[in-house]
Amino acid sequence: MHNTPFFTIWRVNMRTRTCRREPVPKDWGRLGGRALIARILVDEVEVTCDPLGPENKLIFAPGLLVGHMLSSCDRISIGGKSPLTGGVKEANAGGRTGYQMAALGIKALIVEDLPETPGLWAIRLSSEGAQFLPADDLAGVGVYQSAAKLLERHGDHVAIALIGPGGEAGMLAAGIQNLDKDAAPSRMAARGGLGALMGSKGLKAIIFDGDTGSKPPLFDRKAFELARKDYNKALLAHPQTSAYRDYSTVAMTSLTNAYAALPTRNFSSGQFEGAETLTGEHFRSLMLGRGKSCDPSHACMPGCIIQSSNVFTTADGDTTVSPIEYETVGMMGANLGIADLDEVARLNYQVNDIGLDSIEIGAALGVAAEAGLMEFGDAARALELVGEIRAGTPLGRILGNGAAAIGREYGVERVPVAKGQAMSAYDPRAIKGTGVTYATSPQGGDHTAGLTIRANIDHLRVEGQVELSRSAQFKMAGYDSLGACIFAGFGVSLNMGVIPALLAARYGWEVEEDFLVDLGKECIRLEREFNRNAGFTPADDRIPAWMTCEPLPPHNSVFDVPEEELDGIFSDL
Amino acid sequence: MHNTPFFTIWRVNMRTRTCRREPVPKDWGRLGGRALIARILVDEVEVTCDPLGPENKLIFAPGLLVGHMLSSCDRISIGGKSPLTGGVKEANAGGRTGYQMAALGIKALIVEDLPETPGLWAIRLSSEGAQFLPADDLAGVGVYQSAAKLLERHGDHVAIALIGPGGEAGMLAAGIQNLDKDAAPSRMAARGGLGALMGSKGLKAIIFDGDTGSKPPLFDRKAFELARKDYNKALLAHPQTSAYRDYSTVAMTSLTNAYAALPTRNFSSGQFEGAETLTGEHFRSLMLGRGKSCDPSHACMPGCIIQSSNVFTTADGDTTVSPIEYETVGMMGANLGIADLDEVARLNYQVNDIGLDSIEIGAALGVAAEAGLMEFGDAARALELVGEIRAGTPLGRILGNGAAAIGREYGVERVPVAKGQAMSAYDPRAIKGTGVTYATSPQGGDHTAGLTIRANIDHLRVEGQVELSRSAQFKMAGYDSLGACIFAGFGVSLNMGVIPALLAARYGWEVEEDFLVDLGKECIRLEREFNRNAGFTPADDRIPAWMTCEPLPPHNSVFDVPEEELDGIFSDL
Repeated sequence: MHNTPFFTIWRVNMRTRTCRREPVPKDWGRLGGRALIARILVDEVEVTCDPLGPENKLIFAPGLLVGHMLSSCDRISIGGKSPLTGGVKEANAGGRTGYQMAALGIKALIVEDLPETPGLWAIRLSSEGAQFLPADDLAGVGVYQSAAKLLERHGDHVAIALIGPGGEAGMLAAGIQNLDKDAAPSRMAARGGLGALMGSKGLKAIIFDGDTGSKPPLFDRKAFELARKDYNKALLAHPQTSAYRDYSTVAMTSLTNAYAALPTRNFSSGQFEGAETLTGEHFRSLMLGRGKSCDPSHACMPGCIIQSSNVFTTADGDTTVSPIEYETVGMMGANLGIADLDEVARLNYQVNDIGLDSIEIGAALGVAAEAGLMEFGDAARALELVGEIRAGTPLGRILGNGAAAIGREYGVERVPVAKGQAMSAYDPRAIKGTGVTYATSPQGGDHTAGLTIRANIDHLRVEGQVELSRSAQFKMAGYDSLGACIFAGFGVSLNMGVIPALLAARYGWEVEEDFLVDLGKECIRLEREFNRNAGFTPADDRIPAWMTCEPLPPHNSVFDVPEEELDGIFSDL
Repeated sequence: MHNTPFFTIWRVNMRTRTCRREPVPKDWGRLGGRALIARILVDEVEVTCDPLGPENKLIFAPGLLVGHMLSSCDRISIGGKSPLTGGVKEANAGGRTGYQMAALGIKALIVEDLPETPGLWAIRLSSEGAQFLPADDLAGVGVYQSAAKLLERHGDHVAIALIGPGGEAGMLAAGIQNLDKDAAPSRMAARGGLGALMGSKGLKAIIFDGDTGSKPPLFDRKAFELARKDYNKALLAHPQTSAYRDYSTVAMTSLTNAYAALPTRNFSSGQFEGAETLTGEHFRSLMLGRGKSCDPSHACMPGCIIQSSNVFTTADGDTTVSPIEYETVGMMGANLGIADLDEVARLNYQVNDIGLDSIEIGAALGVAAEAGLMEFGDAARALELVGEIRAGTPLGRILGNGAAAIGREYGVERVPVAKGQAMSAYDPRAIKGTGVTYATSPQGGDHTAGLTIRANIDHLRVEGQVELSRSAQFKMAGYDSLGACIFAGFGVSLNMGVIPALLAARYGWEVEEDFLVDLGKECIRLEREFNRNAGFTPADDRIPAWMTCEPLPPHNSVFDVPEEELDGIFSDL
């Protein structure tokens, strides 16, 4: 234990361009990541505020286990009142940011207020405090080039969180990108429009110089290393770990297509006739054939032994994205009727460079096709539409605001959103537990809030889905508060003792195995409190009506989990 | 009393193209107009339905006093679940529709379901029933030309309710136009996107051939004529009546400018330096100077003795609108920084012809100027933007969806809406009672739901505004259920006995003087029930946050009626 606490709250004010360090309030100490964000939002943010106005706050909070290169446990949670959903929002990412924030002793970074005059800023945070640096020269500059320039200025070792032109323009599908271990700006806290929130604060980038700090203290170093070993052993023991190393998350295509849950042509079918060329196997064979420009087994964070990420370069060598995720393949591939991974990669690259969520934009383009603005399968037209987003044309603005926006402005009913946020590449009519998650998660349509596809259950049956989603949501909220990747859960599930062991060694806490779920419960309780105060009601905890009556081929299933069951999912919180 | 009831419910199904006449359910008999619409919505419409889907219903219901050419008492209420607000919606209009529906014995016309194949239809209703007529030749045709063609086909005597290209395209600012006594398609049930609802049903026009029917029965003809005399006397005795005859509603400009409540340049000031040329006096002098092409004292319904309407022709003789209303002058004049009535008339004509609500589009253009899409005062650019709406470009679609849409897609906070619907030309920071109405009316931002500007109260003070709005809202809901124009209230207020007398003579009902308010209360109770079930909460009963902190020059007032008072306004219902 230390006399001066290592961790403090860093409060940046964009109006006064000052940074204040404060002790961690007592209530916040045992929270981290997503749960801490929920707590701060409930404590400090006026729920009815304009998400892009001065009262909203942009919060960065590393999870409780961040800072020691525990495999897949250095994630950064970013949050605020969502410009997209109007409710609570946390989105997390791998890469360097969490680790370097922890090294600086930042329990949470809270960005407040708005600049008085227009202009774009970067903030450099080091052990000395904050430097506010004009960044007008980066206005409108894409994420890849912006990151390169910032790295030149600040050195290759820093962590950077930054936005693209989409966030600067306040587009509601904009996310916040973070450097990965190789300094590529590829790890996006994508969902819910947090990039627009960062843009509203006149903030292009935050540079974290973790080298000026030090590793966070450990309560018992020896015990920590022992616990790390047990944790790694469990991680490696899980069969799924190696599948992700070989095939990345793209491994998922075969599974969703088999379950008929692969969104195809704006969620009009659950199976795609072109799925074969979107599978992990095909993906891997392409990469192996293309040699050095590709890497099928790439780690996003230093120390990660799962290495689910990848580096993918198109056949013509023009475009490299790192990584292509399954969700992008689903939403910008099958969902747009596109069966060519190179085309998906080109779309992905552009969307990354504008700084937008590829799930939300994939869904928006699907709705645009439904509205007659493109033909399904026409990748060139899809790229043109992404060009409209970059140009900020009226149509581009609508698309950059996401799937709900294009549906609203063009009067399309078949819009795959929950709480205004696009669902991911798992059709809720075929994986009903995940549908329950989409409907009831305080975050809106979001598979990472509680994916159920790996559960040993008939995914088409109604029975048991609410309980399954509830349990998945608590666990995921727990992992998101620890800073642990979804894949960490595979390992932890084999040895539930590792989390108490790690927390005991790190903080000296005595917690039981149910700590993870309790943390998740507290997180969701707070998030629901925020949403309720913001005006959300049970009517918002729904899958869109058309999915409850339009059968999904080939099983012709509908989303039929009864509303009373949805309403009861968190009734004990 | 009659053995076969004169009035029935007409139920039109757009899928089967059939019309069924049914007895009036017992609960519905004593309701009419707006209250009957609320009752039908609560009884029959799934609150969570897509407003443009098959489950929503489009309802036409004449008020209880409609059918006997009582001055300003033949209004038609039109309603459904609002495509704009997502809540309950009733909008009413003068003209011929109400009267001819009553002559056909239609207590309410309920249009259900959707056609199975694309296509546009007109329905002709006569005592024989319904004829379904293809109207594809009118697709995309403006309201003025469509009305002319329909009159040619069906005779000059019919009533017509129709939509323009905006409603066909599902734009959320689209209204439903009705012929006035001179067969001009000028009386719009404008608010809340009912034109989009009609368009979603593949319905271009409804033709009512009232000549095939007969006057509705009177319980006591002699008593009715006596009551009518008392009513007319009261109407004429009120000093306001003659002001409206001379200056139309444009009389209001001087008053709102004096109160500093005239929305100027997107509600950034309450007084407009160009207000002089937007006043009723200037308006009248222009019209008198232009001779026969103008008419300052025009009745919208046969038998109306108030004649608040007008016919206005621009100096070049090119454009005639009938009428120009104050709200259009405020929202498309001062609110856009435009001081020229001819320019306002040109904008008004185009918006009428597309079939859109001029209040909503005026507000949308104000927000567009805020977003940098036009300069305030640039009428030519404003006309261009209206041209984009007609062309259905992406920007046109956004604007055609109203003020909230353009604010949302362009990230503008200064959007003057309540429940997603544009406020009218009374700034709620200067006329706070009307602000309470905007915030708490189940209809959304709507001055006709309870305008308080004529009350003898300090409009800038907080005290008394909630009570004032409450009482105005009950009365207006009552008038809207009787089919009475807002101006009928001036007369009725001088002799509260006329309503019971008229109802006794017409139906044999024995009601007290508080019948009007009780009817209004029941109406609002039902409307709130619908909204609550649709997911509305107290957080929706608000003026936008920026109006609670941004001072309105020159008084620098903000909207500061406490939220608890807003929440308590209908606590007894």
